[in-house]
Amino acid sequence: MAEKYIYFFGGKQTEGKAGMRDLLGGKGANLAEMAGLGIAVPPGFTITTKACTYYFKNNSTFPPGLEDKIPSSLKKIESIVGKKFGDPANPLLLSVRSGARVSMPGMMDTILNLGLNEITMQGLAENTGNEFFAHDCYRRFISMFGNVVLGIEGEDFEDILSNTKAARNIESDTELSVQDLRSIIKKFKALVKKKTKNDFPDDPAEQLRLAINAVFDSWNTPRAVAYRKMNNFSHDWGTAVNVQAMVFGNMGNTSATGVAFTRNPATGEKKFYGEYMVNAQGEDVVAGVRTPKPISELKDEMPAVYEELEKIYVKLENHYRDMQDLEFTIQEEKLYLLQTRNGKRTADAALKVAVDMVEENLIDKKTALTRLEASQLDQIFHPMIDPKTKVKVLAKGLGASPGAATGKVVFTPEKAQKLAEEKEKVILVRMDTSPEDIHGMNVAQGILTAKGGMTSHAAVVARAMGKPCVSGCGSLSVETKKKRCVLNGVKINELDYITLDGTTGRVMKDQLPLVQPRVTGNFTKVMSWVDEVRTLKVRANADTPHDAWVARDFGAEGIGLCRTEHMFFDEERISLVRRMIVAEDAKEREEPLKKLLPIQRVDFTEIFRVMEGLPVTIRLLDPPLHEFLPASAEEIKNLAKEMGWKPSVMTKKIESMKEINPMLGHRGCRLGITFPEIYRMQVRAIFEGACKLLKKGLKVFPEIMIPLVGHINEFKYSKDLVLEVAEEVIQKADVKLPYKIGTMIELPRAALTADEIAKEADFFSFGTNDLTQTTFGLSRDDAGSFLPSYIEKGILEEDPFVSLDQTGTGQLVEIAVKKGREANKKIHMGICGEHGGDPASISFFHKTGLEYVSCSPFRVPTALLSAAQAAIEHKSRRKK
Amino acid sequence: MAEKYIYFFGGKQTEGKAGMRDLLGGKGANLAEMAGLGIAVPPGFTITTKACTYYFKNNSTFPPGLEDKIPSSLKKIESIVGKKFGDPANPLLLSVRSGARVSMPGMMDTILNLGLNEITMQGLAENTGNEFFAHDCYRRFISMFGNVVLGIEGEDFEDILSNTKAARNIESDTELSVQDLRSIIKKFKALVKKKTKNDFPDDPAEQLRLAINAVFDSWNTPRAVAYRKMNNFSHDWGTAVNVQAMVFGNMGNTSATGVAFTRNPATGEKKFYGEYMVNAQGEDVVAGVRTPKPISELKDEMPAVYEELEKIYVKLENHYRDMQDLEFTIQEEKLYLLQTRNGKRTADAALKVAVDMVEENLIDKKTALTRLEASQLDQIFHPMIDPKTKVKVLAKGLGASPGAATGKVVFTPEKAQKLAEEKEKVILVRMDTSPEDIHGMNVAQGILTAKGGMTSHAAVVARAMGKPCVSGCGSLSVETKKKRCVLNGVKINELDYITLDGTTGRVMKDQLPLVQPRVTGNFTKVMSWVDEVRTLKVRANADTPHDAWVARDFGAEGIGLCRTEHMFFDEERISLVRRMIVAEDAKEREEPLKKLLPIQRVDFTEIFRVMEGLPVTIRLLDPPLHEFLPASAEEIKNLAKEMGWKPSVMTKKIESMKEINPMLGHRGCRLGITFPEIYRMQVRAIFEGACKLLKKGLKVFPEIMIPLVGHINEFKYSKDLVLEVAEEVIQKADVKLPYKIGTMIELPRAALTADEIAKEADFFSFGTNDLTQTTFGLSRDDAGSFLPSYIEKGILEEDPFVSLDQTGTGQLVEIAVKKGREANKKIHMGICGEHGGDPASISFFHKTGLEYVSCSPFRVPTALLSAAQAAIEHKSRRKK
Repeated sequence: MAEKYIYFFGGKQTEGKAGMRDLLGGKGANLAEMAGLGIAVPPGFTITTKACTYYFKNNSTFPPGLEDKIPSSLKKIESIVGKKFGDPANPLLLSVRSGARVSMPGMMDTILNLGLNEITMQGLAENTGNEFFAHDCYRRFISMFGNVVLGIEGEDFEDILSNTKAARNIESDTELSVQDLRSIIKKFKALVKKKTKNDFPDDPAEQLRLAINAVFDSWNTPRAVAYRKMNNFSHDWGTAVNVQAMVFGNMGNTSATGVAFTRNPATGEKKFYGEYMVNAQGEDVVAGVRTPKPISELKDEMPAVYEELEKIYVKLENHYRDMQDLEFTIQEEKLYLLQTRNGKRTADAALKVAVDMVEENLIDKKTALTRLEASQLDQIFHPMIDPKTKVKVLAKGLGASPGAATGKVVFTPEKAQKLAEEKEKVILVRMDTSPEDIHGMNVAQGILTAKGGMTSHAAVVARAMGKPCVSGCGSLSVETKKKRCVLNGVKINELDYITLDGTTGRVMKDQLPLVQPRVTGNFTKVMSWVDEVRTLKVRANADTPHDAWVARDFGAEGIGLCRTEHMFFDEERISLVRRMIVAEDAKEREEPLKKLLPIQRVDFTEIFRVMEGLPVTIRLLDPPLHEFLPASAEEIKNLAKEMGWKPSVMTKKIESMKEINPMLGHRGCRLGITFPEIYRMQVRAIFEGACKLLKKGLKVFPEIMIPLVGHINEFKYSKDLVLEVAEEVIQKADVKLPYKIGTMIELPRAALTADEIAKEADFFSFGTNDLTQTTFGLSRDDAGSFLPSYIEKGILEEDPFVSLDQTGTGQLVEIAVKKGREANKKIHMGICGEHGGDPASISFFHKTGLEYVSCSPFRVPTALLSAAQAAIEHKSRRKK
Repeated sequence: MAEKYIYFFGGKQTEGKAGMRDLLGGKGANLAEMAGLGIAVPPGFTITTKACTYYFKNNSTFPPGLEDKIPSSLKKIESIVGKKFGDPANPLLLSVRSGARVSMPGMMDTILNLGLNEITMQGLAENTGNEFFAHDCYRRFISMFGNVVLGIEGEDFEDILSNTKAARNIESDTELSVQDLRSIIKKFKALVKKKTKNDFPDDPAEQLRLAINAVFDSWNTPRAVAYRKMNNFSHDWGTAVNVQAMVFGNMGNTSATGVAFTRNPATGEKKFYGEYMVNAQGEDVVAGVRTPKPISELKDEMPAVYEELEKIYVKLENHYRDMQDLEFTIQEEKLYLLQTRNGKRTADAALKVAVDMVEENLIDKKTALTRLEASQLDQIFHPMIDPKTKVKVLAKGLGASPGAATGKVVFTPEKAQKLAEEKEKVILVRMDTSPEDIHGMNVAQGILTAKGGMTSHAAVVARAMGKPCVSGCGSLSVETKKKRCVLNGVKINELDYITLDGTTGRVMKDQLPLVQPRVTGNFTKVMSWVDEVRTLKVRANADTPHDAWVARDFGAEGIGLCRTEHMFFDEERISLVRRMIVAEDAKEREEPLKKLLPIQRVDFTEIFRVMEGLPVTIRLLDPPLHEFLPASAEEIKNLAKEMGWKPSVMTKKIESMKEINPMLGHRGCRLGITFPEIYRMQVRAIFEGACKLLKKGLKVFPEIMIPLVGHINEFKYSKDLVLEVAEEVIQKADVKLPYKIGTMIELPRAALTADEIAKEADFFSFGTNDLTQTTFGLSRDDAGSFLPSYIEKGILEEDPFVSLDQTGTGQLVEIAVKKGREANKKIHMGICGEHGGDPASISFFHKTGLEYVSCSPFRVPTALLSAAQAAIEHKSRRKK
């Protein structure tokens, strides 16, 4: 049998369906699916991707039989819509679109109104009774065809249009007269003649043939080729071509166009929802020239059409078993569906739709869970800008920590604190933040920084605090001394109001109204389903009793990462910490350590109390010590005084501690090995706190985590130190305290030698932030200068600090899991990097066989849902 | 048969041999070997490591039969030396030493003179006619035994000794009278009584039993246990115990002690060489109390002994087939060998000995090559401090680039240049160096820095220049503005003379005399053998025509790494480079790039010309751009003026380019992707230069290397750019130019995804410096603050920047080689990191199957020899 190159859809003869994506392309397959359901779509046909493949293999010729079959396919369209292609009185017009199996930038998009020439245009004018409309269609067709098919610069057509408008002293296209359009059409044709040495093709059949060629050729534009190369898509796939009858919603008062949702996309309420506009085209709705009417009015205006639309929406929702977003056109009381797709919805709506559809027996719980967008769950815990507000965006940065905030701009943490004491709401604006800014971040409503990516200090801390943050706002420059900043050229002074949207990264002037979050019963119900299916546990990264409390409230099953250094920035402690750091030897370090011990003991005791019965993983001191040291002359002087040193000596000491690449410097367990007395103090504080609670009858499960281990000997040395202090404290307290000693796997070398380390360690916790940095050789603090250009050029698909790079960094995780488990069957494994809150990464961790992920408290629900989705996906894959 | 726990050596009954190291320990096995050759060693016996293992498994008891066999073994010793253990008139004294299969710090070393008590001491005094000697032996024995066996602090004995000397107002032990010694012995015994509640043991048999126990117990001191743990040595090995008769070279004028070499260790001349001292002990020779006599005088003084010694040295050299370093003692005209080992020698001597021994048919060429110490070969190309000079070391740093240099101290590159123009010799002293210091380094005799390790900027550049450098000199502080520095507390002003030894890391005051290097025919001969056996090729890292010339002269077979950035620091160019960097867009960048193009073209043309017929791998621009930017206000002002900017704008621009972790920042191919015009200029310069020479009939083989690739898309993007420019230039020149495009593998992600990259790349060159940094998460610039403590604590055995970490970083190299070759059989692979000059690493690279190593020019001979050694070692291993 000869290969079938044309698939028809519409009327009663639809030949394709949704599953034939590879052959018909995404667009063609979906149109066929709707037509197959008996829903009226503008009829048409799809030329298969195989025809395209043939075309390229055979010197740009059509496969045998294809061209012959086109007239008969056109006939079918003609008979359905009652018009004839090229007919002077009642011409059929066509749209021609490309459509590969995946959507691909750089390929031809659409040619509309194909089939027009001087004669058919007259027919259209008479038919519609609208001369302007017919001429406007024609001039649009010439420029579209001239540009896309004949390769003439779009600008050349634009110039003719704007020159005409300028000469007529008008601004809008709609103000043009039919006379103007005639003159433009003439000039367009002259331009085509000049550029192509040929007349603009008048023959509709030739127009169609040229358009099909152009769609095929667009598969090989440099941009499309480059895109496939970057995405490892095969050049052999080819594109399909969709040829479809044009329909017009602007053919008078019995015509209309509209969009609708099968349920309310904002609330999820089960009620047909949408709007329409009489005698209008899709682009009129978008342009907002007139105000559309609510869909309910269509019931009165065109009752039969409305009834049909209602039937269709129910049919589509039942067919797709999801809320649908429809586009339709009514041409002279005849309804056509142009598109249906799963509708976008707010998190609130998503939860309600999920719960309702399960109760309606439309879908089962697992399907409902799969449908929810895990990363969207954040929304329901954070304030949003009131959706009714008209927002004018001043600048855009990265949406680094979700939610909206508004307040007065301040440029220093000190000023933030001062105003906060006066009950003012403030937004802290900085070039970037460092641990010294914590007290300012703590009291601010939100944080805005010029530098730093999704895992910069500002972003990480803000997320941990559940506070909105926009980071990496390139168009922001901060002049702290002058108490002002410039945002995209606009000066903002201290105490001016701004509003941030940390979900989208937008920054606005003035104080915009916010909507506060509300947690519904639907959330609780969905979360109970989540717990039924997931196997991956979810812990939280929390450094304070407050964070721990929030995390537990959201469902965290332990703390996966408690960063002890964040406790060090409290105003009362920092001076002790600094004295501990600059001390010349262990002896001089003794006194500040002695004073820090009881303070840290209280820190840990409180966290253990909040997390009673659950494991708490505490990471010993990790960051480069100089992060804690004072920067200002005043502070240096003070510290020198406390130590009895000359200020110049202190300055020198601080200078000597500066590092060229602190991320790769004297930090992590390297600190514990060179200054064991610091780790000893921390371990003592942890175990004294734990023993105290244990004696009171509380259950505590401390897990001591050694950071930045790269060599088994580093771990051995640190483990011995922990064991020695822990055993001493436990024996002294005379209790039985179960505890674990493990390590972060955050260096490639640790992953590669995981077998050696696993023999000694009780657990691995993957620190995927640092692991990403070293695997890529990419500093998260500095990547801002080139990462955006990488994403833009398609070199990286995603920021690897946001979603785990599974090919590279993930490979190290897999190596470490495999080697680790082979060497120690009892070892526990989890992950505590920022990726612990990212759905795609969580799916990977589930697949890799980790036991838990740990993320910032506000991300816990997202992680829980993602864990459930991963379990469902994995199980269904295994079944296949 | 019962297990044999005691092996005798000496006389005619030697039971062990060199191969029994695991059972007898290293020391016992070697003593047995000499005795087995019929050479007189002080007779004795070794208690096996199996006895030690038994001891620990059986609650610290000796295995059955061991204790019973000791008397009979002692009898054998007694009959050989004609003395009796514990005999009042003619007592046999013993030494007792530990000796495991590997030497191990923390274990017991030695007890001498065992067997002494009040009575045998009298016998010794009478026998030697030296009461002082006998008493001195006794007091030494008590303190040694008291400390090592009975566990009393050595300091407690020292205190008694120094109090006595203070009371007598004398300084040296030798000034003590016999009366003093008697009183000291009494006090020593009282101390023992007080501390142990027991009298000091008088019974020689008990002394011996206790000493053997102590040796066994020393296997489990915490330090020895920790050492084994760190080195993955089994705790089950156990230690042997060596019990040996004491011999004395200080029993009058027929006794002596000496050391000798079978050939001259300084020149290699085949002539017995050594010195001896009559009536003296080993420690007298070391202390330099008297001047020893040349060995030739022994011929006259004790002709029979000399004749015997001559026979022995010939026998030992023929047996070991290597130059031996002997220690001997003559006791009353009876010669005893105490030790023989392969003698250390200068590089000159090593080459001569190797060539001579091959010509004497003592060894074959391969054995000769295996014997040479590859890392020592450097010596012959560098000046040394005249060995006759008495050297007083002022401070020590890292021997970062070999050779000695002397000159006037300067603190800035500018001053260095100024003085150099006046023909002064200068040493450049800096906290650390950066590319801006290159012109100063270029004219200096040597470089001294306070910071930085073996692969710091100063070290790498100095090695490339073949210039002595001491880096990481912790006791150096530099006060550039005050034009002085402090070295270990000693002030050195500008223009003071200092001398550096970059081989050992020593820094001395004043101008010391240097000996200039000379290359001999032996070197040439050895290198011809090297070429016969090696399979690994050796290229050089060279950035200038001069470096290339040196490299080729030393035998380099191409350039493996030409760093284009080093060309940018020339005074005339830096301003253009800076303008190129700060330019706001590609347009503003055009002019400086246009001016740089012909300059770079000349650079490459000259290098190609020098390396005619050999491959030249050129790395496109790699370092973070801000490294090139000006730091001083003056320079910033100048640059601003050239650009027509305000100085404040320039300052801001420079500030905005600073990075927190530049090593992980905007560098490598990331530069080429964000600023493609820079790479385009470099590629154009390379290919225009190459085509020009090709047209003149020269053979050129350019290889373009893309740095810091982590993702295949980075490579694809960069490769396309190179291809585009290269093809354009080649077509225009109308020539056929073979060239390659490859990448550095210097990020873990590149190694892990080597299969993807290999499909596109012509070659991989492993950048093991950066790969080590990211695999370990270790900045080579910052590691100085903790790496020494890591080596000291045994956490790392070696600086991973000096010798490749084969377990971790090496694993990534292996992964990349395997994946790369599987994906692309034709791919070429080499290594261009600093490890390319390290013998152990070269052996690893040979084994891994790389085609070449590339190292700094002066290391080429070392690398060539190492490559030969690796080939020999690998082949012999495969045979086994």
